[in-house]
Amino acid sequence: MNSKFIVIEGLEGAGKTTARDAVVAVLAQHGISDVVFTREPGGTPLAEKLRDLIKQGIEGEQVTDKAELLMLYAARVQLVDTVIKPALARGAWVVGDRHDLSSQAYQGGGRGLDRQLMNALRDTALADFAPDLTLYLDVTPEIGLQRARARGALDRIEQESLNFFVRTRDRYLELAAADPRIKTIDATQNIEQVTTSLQSVLRQWLAEQA
Amino acid sequence: MNSKFIVIEGLEGAGKTTARDAVVAVLAQHGISDVVFTREPGGTPLAEKLRDLIKQGIEGEQVTDKAELLMLYAARVQLVDTVIKPALARGAWVVGDRHDLSSQAYQGGGRGLDRQLMNALRDTALADFAPDLTLYLDVTPEIGLQRARARGALDRIEQESLNFFVRTRDRYLELAAADPRIKTIDATQNIEQVTTSLQSVLRQWLAEQA
Repeated sequence: MNSKFIVIEGLEGAGKTTARDAVVAVLAQHGISDVVFTREPGGTPLAEKLRDLIKQGIEGEQVTDKAELLMLYAARVQLVDTVIKPALARGAWVVGDRHDLSSQAYQGGGRGLDRQLMNALRDTALADFAPDLTLYLDVTPEIGLQRARARGALDRIEQESLNFFVRTRDRYLELAAADPRIKTIDATQNIEQVTTSLQSVLRQWLAEQA
Repeated sequence: MNSKFIVIEGLEGAGKTTARDAVVAVLAQHGISDVVFTREPGGTPLAEKLRDLIKQGIEGEQVTDKAELLMLYAARVQLVDTVIKPALARGAWVVGDRHDLSSQAYQGGGRGLDRQLMNALRDTALADFAPDLTLYLDVTPEIGLQRARARGALDRIEQESLNFFVRTRDRYLELAAADPRIKTIDATQNIEQVTTSLQSVLRQWLAEQA
């Protein structure tokens, strides 16, 4: 099987880190052990600097939605061109914690940025590059935020209003329903159930690729 | 007269700082003293952070041309929306050290990024926002770089090859020839001559706006 780019998506507290371990376990069962992990925004020294600016903001300065979006794409393009594509080219699999769907959901849905602008920027920045499979962990904002809060301090984006996350989730669900490469997993279940569902979806998908 | 956005453009060593003082002197003669200065990339705390990343890069990491371009636009959008447009709206004039034409010339001409990509990104980021007047100080790369070197240490972009600056200047000249809002000034002359030419062009333009 050719190497693939698999992305894990979802709101804060959806369980993305646990899901990553579950994905790795299934890949290992299939004999796939050369796996590169990425997280977005971030994943290269430059992209991590941009992540800090995006997550923490600047004291006393309101970052505009459009500037935030352009920083996200700068970080993403750098990651795709210097890490993801080279890894896939040498035959490694790539498992990503977030990718473009996060921008579509958070900036497009949550912040309400214009869809035409979002699509134009994605096309300009990424052309036709896209994950082979996206595992979307669907959780209500109430449950997700409760879990995220239990984890510690909230960053600039995690401090958004509940309505922001409701709009973000709605956009996730809408885009997942429209794209067969995005699989939705009920992440309101307990960890064991989520892991079981996710691994079952992934095994099915791998069988279809073979 | 409504407030205007005037931009000074040109290669390293073209004399943009001297030109700014000359512009301010002419504006003062016309009773215009509420002037906001900007520089790009930069001009807000966030945009200055992005400027540092763009100018200095990251030790050991090659910044891709597209990531550089997206960071430039993130900085520009933040500056336009939080500084330039509010200043113009309250009646101040804005005098900018570089703006979008620099990206068109350096990234489009110098780095050879695709024109369609450049135009799509500009339209997405800025819509129809543009300077009222651009004063382009035209200098050969040889003369400009000689002056810039005499000034001190060169940054990541100033260390590009001579051919890079030849391509950049060619694009500046091409775009200036195609747009009546861009005035080309021969900046290979000595400082007094450049100042005289620039002020004459600016006075003529102001007379046409009245």
